[in-house]
Amino acid sequence: MSEAFLDSSDSVRSGRPLKHVRTVTFREPLDLEQGGRLDEVTVAYETYGRLNERRDNAVLICHAISGDSHVARHDEDDDPGWWDVLIGPGKGIDTNRYFVVCPNILGGCRGTTGPNSVNPRTGRPYGPDFPLVTVGDMVEVQRRLLDRLGVRRMLGAIGGSMGGHQAMCWSVRHPDRVAGTMAVATSARLSSQGLAFDVVARNAILRDPNFRNGQYYDGGPTPDVGLAIARMIGHITYLSREAMTEKFGADRLSPRDVSTGFEKKFSVGSYLGYQGNKFVERFDANSYVTLSMAIDLFDLGGTPEELAATLSRSQSRWLVISFTSDWLFSPQESRELVDALIRTNKPVSYCNVESSCGHDAFLLPDEAARYGALVGGFLANLSGDGEAPIVAAEHANPQSIFNPAHPQRLDYDMLLDLIPPSASVMDLGCGGGELLSRLAGRGNRPVAGVELDEQAVIACVCRGLDVIQADLNAGLGAFGDGQFDYVVLSQTLQTIRDVEGVIRDMLRVGRRCIVSFPNFAYRELRRMLSEQGRAPEAALLHHKWYNSPNIRCLSIADFEEFIREKDIRVHRSIALNTEEGREVAEDPNLNADLAIFVISR
Amino acid sequence: MSEAFLDSSDSVRSGRPLKHVRTVTFREPLDLEQGGRLDEVTVAYETYGRLNERRDNAVLICHAISGDSHVARHDEDDDPGWWDVLIGPGKGIDTNRYFVVCPNILGGCRGTTGPNSVNPRTGRPYGPDFPLVTVGDMVEVQRRLLDRLGVRRMLGAIGGSMGGHQAMCWSVRHPDRVAGTMAVATSARLSSQGLAFDVVARNAILRDPNFRNGQYYDGGPTPDVGLAIARMIGHITYLSREAMTEKFGADRLSPRDVSTGFEKKFSVGSYLGYQGNKFVERFDANSYVTLSMAIDLFDLGGTPEELAATLSRSQSRWLVISFTSDWLFSPQESRELVDALIRTNKPVSYCNVESSCGHDAFLLPDEAARYGALVGGFLANLSGDGEAPIVAAEHANPQSIFNPAHPQRLDYDMLLDLIPPSASVMDLGCGGGELLSRLAGRGNRPVAGVELDEQAVIACVCRGLDVIQADLNAGLGAFGDGQFDYVVLSQTLQTIRDVEGVIRDMLRVGRRCIVSFPNFAYRELRRMLSEQGRAPEAALLHHKWYNSPNIRCLSIADFEEFIREKDIRVHRSIALNTEEGREVAEDPNLNADLAIFVISR
Repeated sequence: MSEAFLDSSDSVRSGRPLKHVRTVTFREPLDLEQGGRLDEVTVAYETYGRLNERRDNAVLICHAISGDSHVARHDEDDDPGWWDVLIGPGKGIDTNRYFVVCPNILGGCRGTTGPNSVNPRTGRPYGPDFPLVTVGDMVEVQRRLLDRLGVRRMLGAIGGSMGGHQAMCWSVRHPDRVAGTMAVATSARLSSQGLAFDVVARNAILRDPNFRNGQYYDGGPTPDVGLAIARMIGHITYLSREAMTEKFGADRLSPRDVSTGFEKKFSVGSYLGYQGNKFVERFDANSYVTLSMAIDLFDLGGTPEELAATLSRSQSRWLVISFTSDWLFSPQESRELVDALIRTNKPVSYCNVESSCGHDAFLLPDEAARYGALVGGFLANLSGDGEAPIVAAEHANPQSIFNPAHPQRLDYDMLLDLIPPSASVMDLGCGGGELLSRLAGRGNRPVAGVELDEQAVIACVCRGLDVIQADLNAGLGAFGDGQFDYVVLSQTLQTIRDVEGVIRDMLRVGRRCIVSFPNFAYRELRRMLSEQGRAPEAALLHHKWYNSPNIRCLSIADFEEFIREKDIRVHRSIALNTEEGREVAEDPNLNADLAIFVISR
Repeated sequence: MSEAFLDSSDSVRSGRPLKHVRTVTFREPLDLEQGGRLDEVTVAYETYGRLNERRDNAVLICHAISGDSHVARHDEDDDPGWWDVLIGPGKGIDTNRYFVVCPNILGGCRGTTGPNSVNPRTGRPYGPDFPLVTVGDMVEVQRRLLDRLGVRRMLGAIGGSMGGHQAMCWSVRHPDRVAGTMAVATSARLSSQGLAFDVVARNAILRDPNFRNGQYYDGGPTPDVGLAIARMIGHITYLSREAMTEKFGADRLSPRDVSTGFEKKFSVGSYLGYQGNKFVERFDANSYVTLSMAIDLFDLGGTPEELAATLSRSQSRWLVISFTSDWLFSPQESRELVDALIRTNKPVSYCNVESSCGHDAFLLPDEAARYGALVGGFLANLSGDGEAPIVAAEHANPQSIFNPAHPQRLDYDMLLDLIPPSASVMDLGCGGGELLSRLAGRGNRPVAGVELDEQAVIACVCRGLDVIQADLNAGLGAFGDGQFDYVVLSQTLQTIRDVEGVIRDMLRVGRRCIVSFPNFAYRELRRMLSEQGRAPEAALLHHKWYNSPNIRCLSIADFEEFIREKDIRVHRSIALNTEEGREVAEDPNLNADLAIFVISR
């Protein structure tokens, strides 16, 4: 079997019984959100690690449509789990530190009550009598399980895809029971495109003649063709275009030697046929229809306002992770979630992890190191026990090098003086969070950052900071008017393409704003141009004219004119000579190499 | 019926007979590329306009999988055609000027021989006995038709999607019979992702119990469910994610009131069900399988080298058009086509038309004005009769404004002097093609341009110039070493992010290169900084420091150092004072505001 077939951990799952699974049956009837009732509910689940004495180290793992309770290996002899890359001793979700609980979801077919379970009223499988269930119903069943396990307040709830729906639902339904919500490769609701794929997949099942209106548990033929086609559609959406080309482009006319009743002319066809056949062995068609409908009905809000209203109920910290090549749950949708959280003042970090693997990325080892570090750092800071990983120097703000001779960043000291100790602060282009850490360390609350570089974002999260991965040029759309006492743009102005937009937006979001920038009209720089006829390298921050990230050359006088033109108020301006380590009083535009302005609208 | 349902012209097609269709039957047997033979072939086709006396104004229209011969209305009472946006009197393909021929393709089910045609050997429909046909076989049938119509050499062959495959196949199979090849929203071969969707669609048909191995022409049940599901998958891939959200996001839980046996819970579901049902009324399942297999087998080459080898046979000019949001035939794939054409020195223009409509864009009115202008301009220049549309001033190179007092571009005159009249020339950042036009006008051949702005690209094509829409920062990858005698970078260097990469690449592609740029150390600019302490506005080409497209400030001395460091040879350097309209001999770095360097590796 080719490696290419093992593209998602689902592919390595078999239909055999899970060794470590436990079950619990709740006899109290469960009233369902869309009407209907289940007289009793059995939950299959697995646990890893131990609940500590304070009962505050539980992490709930929520699985996606085809997952189950077997999220990780229990030992070396155990079958692989579907999220082994993230969960285990020493991993992102460290089972030596946390009590990990993973139940099979309501409506599933791997131990928890679902359409293929026996209906206690009839003694036969529910089949078409199984009611419509929602993500909210799944969460209600999980709540009963956690109560039974003695977990009142979880440290974290995490899930990818539909698992993310459950984690988010927990956060807004039971805000007092979740300290940290981790939404991975998910969205507030499925896109219309994703919905369309689900509709076609369900049509393939429902219109398979062997579906027989869902009553196929009689030993007769089962809707294998419809279910396999549904699964094939799913697999296409889990892979990025790029990943598909890489797997199947070179040998497109060489199907793998698999046994399948489906078309096998092309390599990608043999893959899909194999995946379709394999899925049918372990999954129930009614369950697939039930769960895919639950995904499609999940909806935290169709407009930014509705979404913000829903998320405002949450009281947890949030970590939102997307993958750049995921087109089933796109980064844009994660960003919409993040924006709604920002709008309601929730502490949230967001990282759009660079990946070519598509939606499957969250299950694959390729990106696990990076998003594992995010999850690990987030949990460590929530639990408050154990050091968060130390930030490597290379993660520091790449703009912090105006004067390499003064690594202590004279301007940081000035900024700390300028910002009252109780103020809330946002740092634009915050790098690895050096300034924010110092602010947080002395008591400023809340502090938040915006940063483009992935490694710097990870560093911030590991430091316990809230950081949004974003390009400043795209604006600060979601942040509210006057949401922060102070917004800081420290030695970043000169790298910005859309200066007017960024300044406008920071003045909207910050009651006061602090802008610092290198003064292009500093004596030494003038001399370099006027006497040597050369682009001043120092102004380019020790880059050359042709490779500097600094694309805006401005002087203090230029900025002052800008401020006058735009009717911006100046509260204070400070001119520094960082070479000499002092403030400049006389002719700053000539004698200062760095300027700091405190401004507002 | 909601407007949202009319998203592709296919949606407005009915199954009723076409009024203006003609047929011709060829009795000579057709030997097929994949083996097999058809004893006779009937072709259904429609024509528009008249073949002129020189018989050189024919344009062949090649349709995609679900199209037919009815490409446009013949008159106001006529049914809509599937490409009315592009074809008709006064339109991009002007039926007042050109003789337009559109045949239904081999294997189709709208008049041309296909699986639902009667097999003359048996007197019954071919069904499963219909042989595997290829795009090459389709082209062979079209060739017979054109011979019959008296068309030896076409002015142009055009098609979108699979229609593009046919147009390209014409160009490489019969290079002497095509003056211009227009490949729209297509690729050298289907992506693995696209192939995967086709495989699932075919599986849905082939495994529909009513497919009955293709022998369903007996009046019994037909594989409508499978065909409808195939069509639904197709429709998802024709629309962009964005377009789907726009159509179905707001009212996702409000299905349209359509009659369909498919799931109808969501608005997008009612759309897909409607489209699926409607397609079944007019299309034949065997035909769909036949044509989709022809698409999947089409392959001009899987590597850049194979593709270039295939395309090298073409002797036509090329126009390649993609749409930014098309994910079935992505812009990147069009760019691969273009790169292979460049590699083999074919005259090619490429435009990636901005659109949110996805693959369907080529059939929709939204973008028709722009890509119609491209097609119209391309054809007008091929036919050499009639003026190409005049380029509006706004299409001129936005970088041509260093000195607004001297609109004649002193440096253009210099460039014309520096370039020998017989040299081949490429202009990087060519704008609307002003310099290239002047070069072509005096005899330089070939001349080509690279330009990012869509309107400027359209202007170039309308001027008969070959232009590639591309970001210079992405490099000149496809152009060969020494492919041009001269490569020009005129007043564009200062806007480039990746200066080193662009210079390196232009020195590779051009035997000689000419770089012109504003001198940042010009006396006036020095004065502005040293005396006024201000970023020199003139150096920013009359923008402000905060909004200038010019992000690199360099002096002549800086460039000279760069050239020394990179071991670049200087053949000539010219310093100009454009304010005074003269060359500068003394201390150019102080006295010149513009520099021109002729360099090579």
